[in-house]
Parts: sequence; structure tokens; C-alpha cells
Amino acid sequence: MIDFPALKDIVDSTPSKIVMIVVDGLGGAPSSKTGLSELETAKLPNLDRLAKESSGGLTIPVAPGVAPGSGPGHLSLFGYNPLKYFIGRGVLEALGIGVSMGDDDVAARGNFCLLDKEGLLVDRRAGRISSQESSPLVEVLDEIDIDGAELSIFPVKDYRFVFLMKGEGLSDKLTETDPQRIGVAPLEVEALDGNAENARNLTNAFLLEARERLMNQERANMVLLRGFSRVPRFPSFADAYKLNAAAIAAYPMYRGLANVVGMSVINCGVEFEDEIDSLAENYNDHDFFYVHYKPADAEGEDGNFGGKVKALEALDSMIPRILDLDPDVVVVAGDHATPSILAAHSWHYVPVLIRSKHTLGDGVGSFSERALAQGSLGTFQAEHLMLQVLSHAGKLSKYGP
Amino acid sequence: MIDFPALKDIVDSTPSKIVMIVVDGLGGAPSSKTGLSELETAKLPNLDRLAKESSGGLTIPVAPGVAPGSGPGHLSLFGYNPLKYFIGRGVLEALGIGVSMGDDDVAARGNFCLLDKEGLLVDRRAGRISSQESSPLVEVLDEIDIDGAELSIFPVKDYRFVFLMKGEGLSDKLTETDPQRIGVAPLEVEALDGNAENARNLTNAFLLEARERLMNQERANMVLLRGFSRVPRFPSFADAYKLNAAAIAAYPMYRGLANVVGMSVINCGVEFEDEIDSLAENYNDHDFFYVHYKPADAEGEDGNFGGKVKALEALDSMIPRILDLDPDVVVVAGDHATPSILAAHSWHYVPVLIRSKHTLGDGVGSFSERALAQGSLGTFQAEHLMLQVLSHAGKLSKYGP
Repeated sequence: MIDFPALKDIVDSTPSKIVMIVVDGLGGAPSSKTGLSELETAKLPNLDRLAKESSGGLTIPVAPGVAPGSGPGHLSLFGYNPLKYFIGRGVLEALGIGVSMGDDDVAARGNFCLLDKEGLLVDRRAGRISSQESSPLVEVLDEIDIDGAELSIFPVKDYRFVFLMKGEGLSDKLTETDPQRIGVAPLEVEALDGNAENARNLTNAFLLEARERLMNQERANMVLLRGFSRVPRFPSFADAYKLNAAAIAAYPMYRGLANVVGMSVINCGVEFEDEIDSLAENYNDHDFFYVHYKPADAEGEDGNFGGKVKALEALDSMIPRILDLDPDVVVVAGDHATPSILAAHSWHYVPVLIRSKHTLGDGVGSFSERALAQGSLGTFQAEHLMLQVLSHAGKLSKYGP
Repeated sequence: MIDFPALKDIVDSTPSKIVMIVVDGLGGAPSSKTGLSELETAKLPNLDRLAKESSGGLTIPVAPGVAPGSGPGHLSLFGYNPLKYFIGRGVLEALGIGVSMGDDDVAARGNFCLLDKEGLLVDRRAGRISSQESSPLVEVLDEIDIDGAELSIFPVKDYRFVFLMKGEGLSDKLTETDPQRIGVAPLEVEALDGNAENARNLTNAFLLEARERLMNQERANMVLLRGFSRVPRFPSFADAYKLNAAAIAAYPMYRGLANVVGMSVINCGVEFEDEIDSLAENYNDHDFFYVHYKPADAEGEDGNFGGKVKALEALDSMIPRILDLDPDVVVVAGDHATPSILAAHSWHYVPVLIRSKHTLGDGVGSFSERALAQGSLGTFQAEHLMLQVLSHAGKLSKYGP
């Protein structure tokens, strides 16, 4: 949680309601043809009007120049310093496919890979075999039993899977087995501290058995494991901000993230429209709603400029349904930029707006990177967004006498 | 180095090349006559064009409101928190005159001063005597021998000199001898910890001898020493960013600074044109070049508005030669502002631009303080500049899963 020990003394629960829409990969970059970004290209009548009525600015997700993954991008929006609070790759991968993890479980991200006859890596991703090809191999791995732990292997996509180990007092202080280059053997797992010896032995026993059972496969005859991690224990978002906070997200990873920070997770369907339905249905039961919108990021990651424009327009068309609920505070933010021209998460600052009756009425002309760069909130660490939001909601009183 | 432990996991060496031009004292302030700053007054066709094609902003060298010396100003541009990483005054003074220092050497900045018959300070700077006058006195001091250390005294300018002490295990934890006021005697050196007793005794023995030998001088009959320091051990810039980094700087102090942070220092002549020649000659051998441009600061410090304008125009005329090398990333930054109207380093934010193929093309109209205040990079800590630069160079992957 944000490094602000006095927060607990100045934050108060009130009846006011906050809806925070997190648009995944919100920020973009200009097309080389038109010089306009996705937001500038899209027709966004509702978001533009909101921008005019709101306090706006740009958020820095982690630090200037740093492109965040979804974990750090979201944690900072929720007020957690993303350099201090970290969710491991294994846990995020497990959350992403909806695997529920106990406090003592250790997860890792698994890859199928290909070794030559000498056991040296030929392909660290096994030719990126399809889910169809990997699916029977995942079943082979899932049948492996090791004394002292309960192992489960879950398919993710293509050559990727989740390795999950349940047992008593297992540590995640383990080294990865991917040597990050070909021509060498996969690494053995090593324990990073004395407590991790048991987990190390169990994992290495699994790896030995996996090699044995995959040995005669032609395309994927071994696995690599990385990002061993347990569900971290973070201070509770709900407690820290005295909010009865709920998360509405169609994608499992974001539900998992919300769960890790201590929000209630509301079930919903797979479309954004379903999310809005859930928001409306549960509107009376919570005072803070995190609502996640995924398609903008997905199109950006695919390098599909036009697709991202359409995804933003689809979001825009749903804004009136949210405003109809008449929340005291509406926030539109993003966990990071995903410019279509980069086809990847990027380090660029991310548009944000906050509308409430306390808004200073200094809104900018439209909802875009360039317009919001001139907004009254300025360019600030995303980690501070929740403080802005709480103040706009009348939930934060003054600090110090 | 910047407090970002995960940096090593996300930074990668790539073939892309970065040229960072550091314009000493780059930022200025409006002339009271025209209301225009030096940058706004100068004709800068090349820098203006670069600004249009670049991501731009303003850097905060140390903290808002703090004017930095050259040491902190440069360290922050290189990603070192200037409040945590510090190069002592003695070391900087020695580096500034090209004295090479070993790990165990202790340097101090020396002043000639004038005492009355009772040994009380009458003038802490000995009437700022000229180099001509001080030069024979420096020779007198340089002849002093003290058992247990090798002492050297180097002239700097006017009443200033460098005191250098070589010996085994010498500590720099020593108090200064300048009482900062007249009417009292110079202070004896004291040891700030137990390890510094030897260095204290050696220095006090030197001071006793210096007083003895200068006693009968009329204008400068004693010395004051401050800023005792050894060359600090900093994490290596080259290692931290996985760069094969080179420094090209005509002035010794900046070569020394670059050496302290672990850059290779390339020999060059005394003019900026010589620096560009060296850049071109060595262009294939490194992937990062720090190129220092001094004249803007020198004119600013002299309070010469027109001179600084000319210095900036001279820099501008050399920009095409740098662009001809076709670096993947070009950075124009400054270590601090030196407004001519203040004739000193100042606390003002400093223009910065980054041009690369990942630039968002949201460039501002011209290269100036006011124009760049509207740039997409916003106003940010100079300490984060290297992260921006690495991202623009495609050398930084995303942080966190």
C-alpha cells in the first residue's frame, strides 16, 4: 500500500459511491499515416463529454520510461507501490486461467521445450506447439505423482501451462530452470534459502519424471519452469481505504488480482456488457467498483490500430449505462499504454479522468493522450490515483492539524 | 543507481545506439528586455526540427527548487539519485584539473587565506589573489613533506588549489578547517571516526608546516581545506544498463565524472567540433555516447546573455553532424539551468528531448523551456531519464508479469 502511514487517520467510510473503469492498455501512440493516436482517431462522444466535465491528467504506472506488465500496472492503480509489491509470474499465470490458489501453494509458469539427444535445448518453446498438440502432454504431466506434495498441471495456451504444487510449508524461493539460451541443458531447480529445500527436491523429482515420460515425444520432450511464486500477502485495499470494494472483470487474471488485494469479486459474463449488468445488479451492495475493460489491450497487443479504435468506441458506447447509475465519482484509467504501433505494453503515460461534484470543472477538450497532458491533475504516479479518487469522493479529510 | 532492483532483469544489450548530448547549463530564463530566454532568442533550426520529431519535456535535476552543482546534475542524468550518490568537493576539484586519483587518495579543495598577527582570519580568500600571485605559493606548499603520506598540491585558479594525500588506508572522514567567518582562527582538522585519526594527524601536520612556510607572506599567509573526499565507489553505469558506454568531453571534470560512474573515456580535443570528430571516429565501438557541451554554461555563469545565445547557436550548427551518424536514439539534455540573468546554476527545470523510431511524434514547436513544458514526457526527475532512453532504444522490456 502507498507509503502514507497517516492514511488510516484521514480516510473515512461514507455513502458516496465510486466506479473505476480500468481500460487495459488504454494509452496509445500516433499512427504514422495520420499522426493521430487510437484515442484521437476513435469517435468517443461520451468519453469526450466526460473529459470536459472532469479533472484529467496522465498517470505514470511504475516510473517514467518503464513499461509495466498487468500486475504492476493494476497494483499501482490500486495504490500499491509496484516496485515494492510484486505478484510472481507463476501466480499471475494461475490466476489468469482461474486456478484458485491456497496460501501455501506454489505456482510456476511452465513451457514445453525441445531437447536434442544429448539433453541440450534446441527450442525453448517447442516450436510454440498449439493447444491441440500440447493438451495430451499436459495430461501426461498431470498424472505424475510425487511423494510429499500434490501436483497439478493446467493447460494455458499453446506451449504454456501452469505448474501448481500444494503441500505443507512449501517455499517459493526457487531458481528457474530456463537457461534463457539454447545449446545447454535445462537447469536444475535450486533453493534460494534453507526453507526451500523441500520444495526444490519435490520440483526436481517432478522434472526428472517429466523428462522420463516426455522423452519419446518428437516436438516437445521436456519442460521449463519459471516464476515460482506463492500468493503474496498484501495489505487489504478494502481495509486501507475503508471501502466495501468489489471487482467486476470478465478475465480471470483480473479477478485474481482483485482477490489478492482484498476486493470482493463479483461473478459476471464474458462481455463488457455483462460486466455492466453485474455492476447495475450489485450497485447497492458496495461503495467501490473496479470494472475492467480488456479489448483495447488485446487489439493493441495484436498491432491492430483499427481494432483498438473500434474497441475504444465500443467502450464509449457503454459509458452512458454507467453514468445512469449516477455514481458520486467516475474514474476512467488505464493500467498501462499498449500502442498498436508497438504491438506491446509501453512505457508511455496513461490518460486518466476523475468526475465528481468536486471536480474543478477544468476539463479538457477531449479524451486523449495529448488533451489530458494539459489536464489539471498533471502527470503523476498512478500510485497516487486512489488518494485523488478518495478526495473527490469526500472520503479523505485533511492531513495534519 | 536508481532504486529499481528489477532493472537488471528487464534491461538487455541490443545493437541500437544512443547518443546523449549533455548541454551544460542548458536551461535559461527570459531577458528582462525581450521576455525571451536564451533558447527562445537563439536561432536553432536544427534543434527546433529535432524538437518537432521528438518526445520532449523538462527534467528536475535533484528536487524542485534545488540548483545542482555539476556533480549532482550529471549523476541524475545518468540515473544516480543525486541525494544518495555524492562526489565530494575535493574529488570534483581534482577531477576538474585532470588529476587522476587512486582509490586510497584523499583530496581536498584548498584556499589561500589571510590571518592577522593573532592568527585570526582577516580574509577567507586572501583577497582572491591571482594565479600569478598564488603560483609560487603553491610551489612552496608542494615542497612540504610529511612522514606517512605523499602530499601533492596542484594549482586550480586564483586563490584555489587542490590538496592531494596518497597513503595506505587513508580515510576522508575529516572535518573542514574553514570556520566560515572571519575574526576566528582556522579550525584544526578533526577525525569523524576512529579510522580517520591517521589522516587527521597527517593533515594537521601539513597545516602546521604550511603556516610556518607562509607566515611571512603579506597577502596570503595560511590555507583553508574543505571537502575532504575519496573517489566514491558507485555501481557501474555500463553494468547497470548493459551498455558499452563511452564519454566524450573536452573538460577534465566531466571526463572524471564519467570515469567515476564507469564509462570508457575517449580522448578528444578541446573544442566541441573535436568531440564530434571523436564521436564519429569511435562510433562503431560503443552503443552509448555521453557527449558534453560546455560553452552554454560558461557564458551563462558569466552572465553573458548574448554569449549564451551564440553558444547555443554554435551547438545547433553541429547537430546535423551527429544526426548524420544516424543513432537509434538521440537525447539532448542538460545537467542544470544556468540563466544568464542569474549568472549562476539555477533550480529551473531543464529542457530535454528524446528522438527515436518509438517517439510518439507529438513533438513541440521549438526547442525551448516554454515549448518543452508542453511535451509528452512532462516534467520528470532527471534520474528517470535513462529509463526513458533505454525504452526508446528498445533495450528495456516490460516490468513484471
